[in-house]
Amino acid sequence: MSTGHHEASWRLPESDPYAHVDLDHYVRLARIAERGTFDSLFLADGPHLWGSIAQRPAGALEPLTLLTALATATEHIGLIATASTSYNSPYNLARKFASLDIISGGRAGWNIVTTAGAEAARNFGLDAEPAHAERYARAAEFLDVALKLWDSWEDDAIVADKAAGVWGDDAKIHPPRHQGTYFSVEGALNVPRSPQGYPLLVQAGSSEDGKAFAARYAEAVITAQQTLRDAQAFYGDLKSRTAQAGRDPEHIKVLPGIVPVIGATEAEARAAEQLLEDHIVYDHGVSRLESLLQLPSGTLELDAQLPADLPPESAIEGAKSRYTLIVELARRERLTVRQLIGRLGGGRGHLTFAGTPEQVADQIETWFTQGAADGFNIMPAVLPSGLETFVEHVVPILRTRGLLRTAYGPRQTLRERYGLPRPANQHTAALV
Amino acid sequence: MSTGHHEASWRLPESDPYAHVDLDHYVRLARIAERGTFDSLFLADGPHLWGSIAQRPAGALEPLTLLTALATATEHIGLIATASTSYNSPYNLARKFASLDIISGGRAGWNIVTTAGAEAARNFGLDAEPAHAERYARAAEFLDVALKLWDSWEDDAIVADKAAGVWGDDAKIHPPRHQGTYFSVEGALNVPRSPQGYPLLVQAGSSEDGKAFAARYAEAVITAQQTLRDAQAFYGDLKSRTAQAGRDPEHIKVLPGIVPVIGATEAEARAAEQLLEDHIVYDHGVSRLESLLQLPSGTLELDAQLPADLPPESAIEGAKSRYTLIVELARRERLTVRQLIGRLGGGRGHLTFAGTPEQVADQIETWFTQGAADGFNIMPAVLPSGLETFVEHVVPILRTRGLLRTAYGPRQTLRERYGLPRPANQHTAALV
Repeated sequence: MSTGHHEASWRLPESDPYAHVDLDHYVRLARIAERGTFDSLFLADGPHLWGSIAQRPAGALEPLTLLTALATATEHIGLIATASTSYNSPYNLARKFASLDIISGGRAGWNIVTTAGAEAARNFGLDAEPAHAERYARAAEFLDVALKLWDSWEDDAIVADKAAGVWGDDAKIHPPRHQGTYFSVEGALNVPRSPQGYPLLVQAGSSEDGKAFAARYAEAVITAQQTLRDAQAFYGDLKSRTAQAGRDPEHIKVLPGIVPVIGATEAEARAAEQLLEDHIVYDHGVSRLESLLQLPSGTLELDAQLPADLPPESAIEGAKSRYTLIVELARRERLTVRQLIGRLGGGRGHLTFAGTPEQVADQIETWFTQGAADGFNIMPAVLPSGLETFVEHVVPILRTRGLLRTAYGPRQTLRERYGLPRPANQHTAALV
Repeated sequence: MSTGHHEASWRLPESDPYAHVDLDHYVRLARIAERGTFDSLFLADGPHLWGSIAQRPAGALEPLTLLTALATATEHIGLIATASTSYNSPYNLARKFASLDIISGGRAGWNIVTTAGAEAARNFGLDAEPAHAERYARAAEFLDVALKLWDSWEDDAIVADKAAGVWGDDAKIHPPRHQGTYFSVEGALNVPRSPQGYPLLVQAGSSEDGKAFAARYAEAVITAQQTLRDAQAFYGDLKSRTAQAGRDPEHIKVLPGIVPVIGATEAEARAAEQLLEDHIVYDHGVSRLESLLQLPSGTLELDAQLPADLPPESAIEGAKSRYTLIVELARRERLTVRQLIGRLGGGRGHLTFAGTPEQVADQIETWFTQGAADGFNIMPAVLPSGLETFVEHVVPILRTRGLLRTAYGPRQTLRERYGLPRPANQHTAALV
């Protein structure tokens, strides 16, 4: 998040170029989001420094750490942290999420990522990125182990009988004793079962492997979609895959990203968008786009379209679905590299939408009512101002239209707010 | 900490048996400690569930997570989290500590442990505990990598020139490119250098390997010492090893643990101690002691002394120095197993001291002025009451005697409070 989802946002006069390491900045954002009765805060992440630091704020506070600090500064909002199944061990990560869920009173969510890219792999003892399919196989086993760990304490394992000197019931502790392909994990977690049982499971991969994984495990899916039709197709596909996996399709929430640029008039909104584009450093954009498309440096020309002979998605080992989205966007709208960078600068593939508060609300209502979204990942181009504008001007319209709560109810877990059931412990017969 | 450092503390009427998973409990403790102008809070930890949960509160919030939550609830106090070099990867852990250091305004400390025991090993894909010497070899390499990562951004790597569109200076980024025995880590950290440069380095092993490690890296050492003479010998040994390692012996602070049980009179203090002993579940204590001494179950008898033919420390792969301390304590005072459990129940090897506030202050002053301690790790038998009593009745005496500050100064980092210099970045010539 830092100064906003537009890569040039840090250059605006209002922006603090050190915001990404300023806790107060994030506390402010979280409180604005609570004023807007948002469901949750979401932090993306990758365990590596991405390329050059020359032309944009780089690095970020580790998301679980930052969200834990925000847990005590907020009361209602969900806290969704990105963490990698490729570069963590299940015991440590399961424990951290259980701890955050306890500390926040049941507001933790985990955005499960497999982490593309050789840069990350080389920070963890590997020479190269593991293959896409292998990353997902490891992710599935990681989830199975994590679920065993989160269920290793039954909800009523603590007895707390002071007189008898009996604190806990060992019969309600279930060590995973897991021996698998990627992990072996013997013992029970050293944290009791948390308010939600385990964090809300969120996922953001939209490749074939990603969608299969989401259908099996995810309760919320964050996705980048450029058109209503694509979003509807994705939504329908994911719901039906979830049903096929034997789950209730209502129990997976589809949340496309949207980058709103809001103005009192259309002209003002367009001017705000233009101001951001004027601050893009295009040289940097070119090398970043080449890296995303896995092209050799120097391939792209700013005022030409993308080369015709790009490889198919199947040849990409990185972020497969994002690759396809970018290539299709460029082809569909016949964008030059410069124009494409302008569009991506706003949200790196998420839908950028410049308009009045009414127009932004219309866009949200259309996608919501026409089977493209159960909710949205609001990614303001500039922060905190873009979030403030959204909360002050778009949120009231959404409330008037009955699309958003007017206030938080009594203290709820993140899962309760999403209308999802608390997961039963696999060692107990009935739902708790 | 939870309900106190005495294992029976949870059974007292005043104690909350769920305190160990209650953020408010820890916030209360932190604020009491700030009222007492303590330097820091310290959380011990191990990544496994230790034995049975039947007879004592088990499990704990993950320390980095808990201390991050406390960072926003406190203003001055240092936050020292235990984390294992055997069961973490340097990139993730270095980033988490840098994030906590940034979020807390330079108050982070890392208690570096190598983690004894097969239970932990089996949660991380190993069949058995790595040998003691190997754990320390890995720890040394871990530290070298972590220091490279923390120094991978020079302090002034961020330029933030909005007009020129230059955010950072790539020449001030230094990827570790580390290829070693246990780790290979290529890239720079994805967090800028933190207020302290890196967290205060704390260590608690008192074996030969542990002391050698401390002399090389540690800025504070937590230790269990039962007698003034042993504590003086340890203190002198560590200071001279530190000097031999080419460091200023003033730059390593020795902090013995003390478990005060305070009463208005000696008789009241002894009664409080007796009340705790009466609540010990001795069956549990026997099996715990057998595990600590690596004896087969059923070896020990409650009303007999320890067997004469225990193995030497060199045969122990677990917590070597703690093993020797316990055996020596039992032999020196000719304790039965029951008596030994009573003594250990208070502080698991740390010095338990029952007395009036004046007597506790005397004890502290003696150790401090006679070359046994630079400070203390205060481990009240019962929490929060024992900490409250210490702050209300012992702290004023220590202040009157000029042994403790009367108020915090302006905002200081944890290292500044310990009187230690901020570490220079290894890539810059001068101290910053």
